Parts: sequence; C-alpha cells; structure tokens
Amino acid sequence: MPKKNKIREGSIRTTSFDVAALAGVSQSAVSRAFKPGSSIAAETREKVLDAARKLNYVPNSIASSLTTHRSNIVAIILGDLNNPFYTHVLETFGRELQARNRHILVFTLNEDMGTDDAIMRLLPYQVDGVILTSAQLSTRMVGMCHDRGIPVVLFNRYIPNTGAFGVRCDNPEGGREIAEAFLAAGARTFAMITGDPKGTTSKDRATGFMDRLVDAGIPRSDIKAYEGSSSYEGGAEAVKAMMADGAKVPDAIFGINDIMAMGAMDALRIEYGLKVPDDVMVAGFDDIPEGARPPYQLTTVRQPINRMVRATIDLLNLDDPHAEIDLAHDCPIKGHMVWRNTIPGPKPE
Amino acid sequence: MPKKNKIREGSIRTTSFDVAALAGVSQSAVSRAFKPGSSIAAETREKVLDAARKLNYVPNSIASSLTTHRSNIVAIILGDLNNPFYTHVLETFGRELQARNRHILVFTLNEDMGTDDAIMRLLPYQVDGVILTSAQLSTRMVGMCHDRGIPVVLFNRYIPNTGAFGVRCDNPEGGREIAEAFLAAGARTFAMITGDPKGTTSKDRATGFMDRLVDAGIPRSDIKAYEGSSSYEGGAEAVKAMMADGAKVPDAIFGINDIMAMGAMDALRIEYGLKVPDDVMVAGFDDIPEGARPPYQLTTVRQPINRMVRATIDLLNLDDPHAEIDLAHDCPIKGHMVWRNTIPGPKPE
Repeated sequence: MPKKNKIREGSIRTTSFDVAALAGVSQSAVSRAFKPGSSIAAETREKVLDAARKLNYVPNSIASSLTTHRSNIVAIILGDLNNPFYTHVLETFGRELQARNRHILVFTLNEDMGTDDAIMRLLPYQVDGVILTSAQLSTRMVGMCHDRGIPVVLFNRYIPNTGAFGVRCDNPEGGREIAEAFLAAGARTFAMITGDPKGTTSKDRATGFMDRLVDAGIPRSDIKAYEGSSSYEGGAEAVKAMMADGAKVPDAIFGINDIMAMGAMDALRIEYGLKVPDDVMVAGFDDIPEGARPPYQLTTVRQPINRMVRATIDLLNLDDPHAEIDLAHDCPIKGHMVWRNTIPGPKPE
Repeated sequence: MPKKNKIREGSIRTTSFDVAALAGVSQSAVSRAFKPGSSIAAETREKVLDAARKLNYVPNSIASSLTTHRSNIVAIILGDLNNPFYTHVLETFGRELQARNRHILVFTLNEDMGTDDAIMRLLPYQVDGVILTSAQLSTRMVGMCHDRGIPVVLFNRYIPNTGAFGVRCDNPEGGREIAEAFLAAGARTFAMITGDPKGTTSKDRATGFMDRLVDAGIPRSDIKAYEGSSSYEGGAEAVKAMMADGAKVPDAIFGINDIMAMGAMDALRIEYGLKVPDDVMVAGFDDIPEGARPPYQLTTVRQPINRMVRATIDLLNLDDPHAEIDLAHDCPIKGHMVWRNTIPGPKPE
C-alpha cells in the first residue's frame, strides 16, 4: 500500500534514459514499450516494464502536451444513454480511437450539465477534438472551440442554419424507405412516434416518411404523430396516448428509433393484446442489436455505425492539427433496410 | 491560473486578468465563471464568457496540473458494455464525478486492449484515480499505479489473494436470498446461468445460491450450472444447452445477472413455449431497468448503484491526494430483493 507519493511531492523525475540504462536497451525501445501498437519484441517490452517499475517511471503525456499542444485526448459528449444506440456508438469510438492511440474524455449530459457546460469543462484540457452526440450547442461555444483550433464534429445530427453538419445517416431517405415498405404491405393509416423535438435526426426521418406517404396520396390526416422522447418508456407511452385518442388503431407505426419501436411493440402486445404485424405493422430505425432479439425481430433501417464513426474520426484530422476543419462537409451516409418480422414483405435475412 | 501559455497557433496567451479588465469584473469572478458549480450571477458569467470569447481565453488545466499534480481526471476502465448494468454505472459515475468537478477518461476493453494495456495508457495522464470494472489486472500494474500514488478502486469485484477488494454488493447474500425465494415457492430442482468465470461477482453469487440450497437439503446433482457469458445471447444459449442436455426442465433458473436472465426467459418462452413462472421460475441479479419492463417483470436483487458509486468515489479520496488508500477496505453493501412476477411470492412492488 502506498505511503507517500514522491511524484506529486515534486521530486526529480527519472527519465527514459535511466530506464534504458537499467533495462540494457535503447532509449527508443523505452518509448516504444510505452506506445501501444509499436513494434517491439515481447521480451524487450518486459525488460523495459520491469526497469520502469523499479525506477517508478512512466512517460508524462501532460508535460509533453505542453510542447506538442496535442493531448491525444478526444472528448465525446454523450446526450442520451437511455438509448442503447449510444452505448454501441461509445463502444465503437472506444475501439477506433484507442486503435489510433487516442483516448476518450467522456461527458454525460444530465439536468445539471448541458452541452455548453460540457464544452466549458473540456476546453481547458487541450483536447484534440470534440465529438458531439447531443442536440444543443450554442454558436458561442462552437466559436470558442474553433478559435482554439479544436475541431468539433457532430455525430448523428447537424445544427440547422449554422453550416455545421457533421456525420449522419441519410435520415430522410431512411424514412422514405420505411414508408415505402409499409405502403407495399398495404398500410393506409399511419402513426409516427417521434424523438427529441430539438434534434434534426427525428425531424428528418419524419419528414422523409411523411413526404413519401403524401406523394402516394395518403391524406395528412391519416398520419398521426406522438412524442416518444427517444426512450423505451416513451415509445410505450406514445402507444397509450394513441389508444387514449380513441382513434382506430393505425395500420402501421413508425418508431423514429428502434428503442421507441420496442417500447411501442410491448405496449401494443401486452397492454392491448394486438399482434405485430398481423394487427399493426411496426418499424424502427438504427438497427440496435436489441431490436434483432427474438421477441422483437424488428424491421428497421441500419445506421452504418462503423462507417459513421470512422468518418467522424477522419473529419477530426487528428494527425494534422493545422488542417482546416471541413465542418460544412455534408455527405449523409446511406442506411440499409433490414427486413425482419414486423412488416410483411421480403423474407427476413 | 497560468500566466503565459502558447495556444496551438503559437500566439501569446491572454490571462484571466485581461479577461477581467475587458469584462469589468474581478479576476476571481473570471475564475468562478469557468468553475462549474461556483456561485456567480448569470449576468456576470455572461460578461466573462463574452470577454473570454473576444480574447480567445480559457484556463489551461494541463499547465496547472503540472504544478498541482492533479488533473481532475478519473479513469474508468469498462469491461463489458454488452451488459446494460455498466451503461447505468457509467451514467451514474458521470453524474457524481461531474458534480465534483472531475471528468472521466474512459477506456473500453476489447480483444485489442486488455486491462493492463489500458493502465499503461492512462498512467501518463496523471489521473487522480482509476476505477476498474473489469476482472483482470496484473499485480505489476496495480503496483505501478500505487507507486505513483494513483488510487485504483475495483467496482463490482475484487481480486482474490491480493488484499485488493473494492466496492461491491454483498453477492453471496444476494445469491442466498434468491435461493430462499425459490425454495419458499416450492422449487426443488435448479439451474444457474453463470457469468464471467474469471470474475468474483458471478462466483460469489453462485456460491451463496448453492450453499443455501445445499443447507436446505437439495442434492448437488439437482443444481446444474451453464455458462452464459454475461450477455443476453449467452443467457439464451445457456437455456438451449440445458434443453439439449435432455434433462428435465428445472423448477427454477437463477440468471447470475439480469441480462442473462432476460435472454433465458425469451428462449424459454419463444423457443420452448414454456411459461414463466408457471412452468419454470426465473430470477436475476442487478435490477437493471430493462428487467423491469413489462415482458420481463423480473424478480431480482437490486444492486445499490448510487451507494456503490459514491462509496467508490469516497475511496478515491479525490480531495486529499496524500491520503492513505484503504484498498483492503472490504465492506460489501447489502442488495435488496425486488419482487416482481418471475417467482410466485409476495405481491410485486
């Protein structure tokens, strides 16, 4: 058990040369031993680590970041962990950034901390970039990051009227594909369960869906919308609101994301004894693994998470801090219709 | 507050005094404006932020950490995001640490990065502490952290034979309570679906469960065990293995955690047409919100996440870097039986 900490008390620090001398290796071998992914023989690495342990040595990224102005840290602002989509997103960023020797400073938003506050807190860390998965961000805060040369990339959303796009799936097109599938299966009355009203993702999916239906001659009055707060519970509540409306059960319900569609399916079946898809068709969006489980077998649009994550990292230009950040880059990535059992149609995959 | 530091572009850095002068406030107001949770009038804060924006000023935590030897960063090593329990754990740590003005450097483990590698990567950041939620950690790595005065606290597990405990629920007692509930409901034959075979959590729950059954005179041959890899899919696979055994369906199945119990329930019902609890009782452990959903209504033992998270943060002694870390502290927190619908018994809450 440690008694007193020498480092924190300001003693002279051992250097990589001391470690190299004790281990009987070159100084560059010491650097490589501490750099994940470097080419170094396992035996050499063991020697270095043993010597480092004896001398109480580790490289100091904090000190070196003062000269390089690079911390190798990327901040991720996570808005909503109630939607498992973002857990999968975090895991994918973890894998991809760690493979590039970058590490994640994570900020979870809640009633005590909004996006602007998170940005205020991360600015002092000289992060190499910011990935934002939540909707709200003031223009001032985007400006403060840009002034300091810190790229901000929006993930799964954009900020209207700012020219700030970011990486996202082609949401309107996905909405249109779901509408198309419902129409082909014979649906003529519809409900949508919408997500974050301030987010662009929900709006874009709903717009694509509506537009395609209206094009097909469906009266707008036959397309109802209910708020579902992007959560399982919200999806279930939306179904209850729909049923309390006294309206006839629609032919088809589009959950703007999978987790709401799952909550809706359970409410339809358990609260109201309805069968999916026989009594009512359902579709989601995202293709979270949870929606593929046997009780749901949800037909949905797959967001290409791996591609989206890699595109986000590319936009951050981590290896070239002086690169111009192309925040106006607007190239949505096409999703992919995944047929399972909640809309009659092509055989499930 | 650092006086002069170069930002990436290399210009001379403005100081908090420059910002105070432009905003017409005191230098201490500038500090407070940037310190979340400080007492400061909204109007004053706005003035400071506007001035800071104009002067391109933010405080530099990196530079100040060199003198204070505190980064205000806590590292969390996350082993398994397939179990939603850890998503809820991350969210709770986020809320509690952010409220204490600390931020989270998150490491997600995968086939390319084990716990030791994560520790190697976080050491250079002078983190104020490490929270470890995964099972494996070499003694050398624990030693490297301790040598540097970095406290490591294990969350939801301990490392046998090292004297390193950490914060956890009273797992053996929870296992005994589940056994008790099954016995009281008339079960006489049992199956367990176990989790990470290298983790202490699964073993301790299984041991408590078995011990109580054996005490009640149940022959060990009537208690089978199947591996479920702590995932939904693993829980379902365990049920398939159990049924393929050709054995009679047991009276009761204990999923060592909720997510495996949920996978097991779906397999029992959907693959084999069995009713829970009429044909087979099921229980879980953790009380993740997902298990409380209508299709599951899972009877389980609640892990007191909020208390466990606060106890972990207390053990880190964040406000007193010279404190002795009491890693041998071993005081499991009692869980709480939550009755729902998967074991006949007391009326659901």
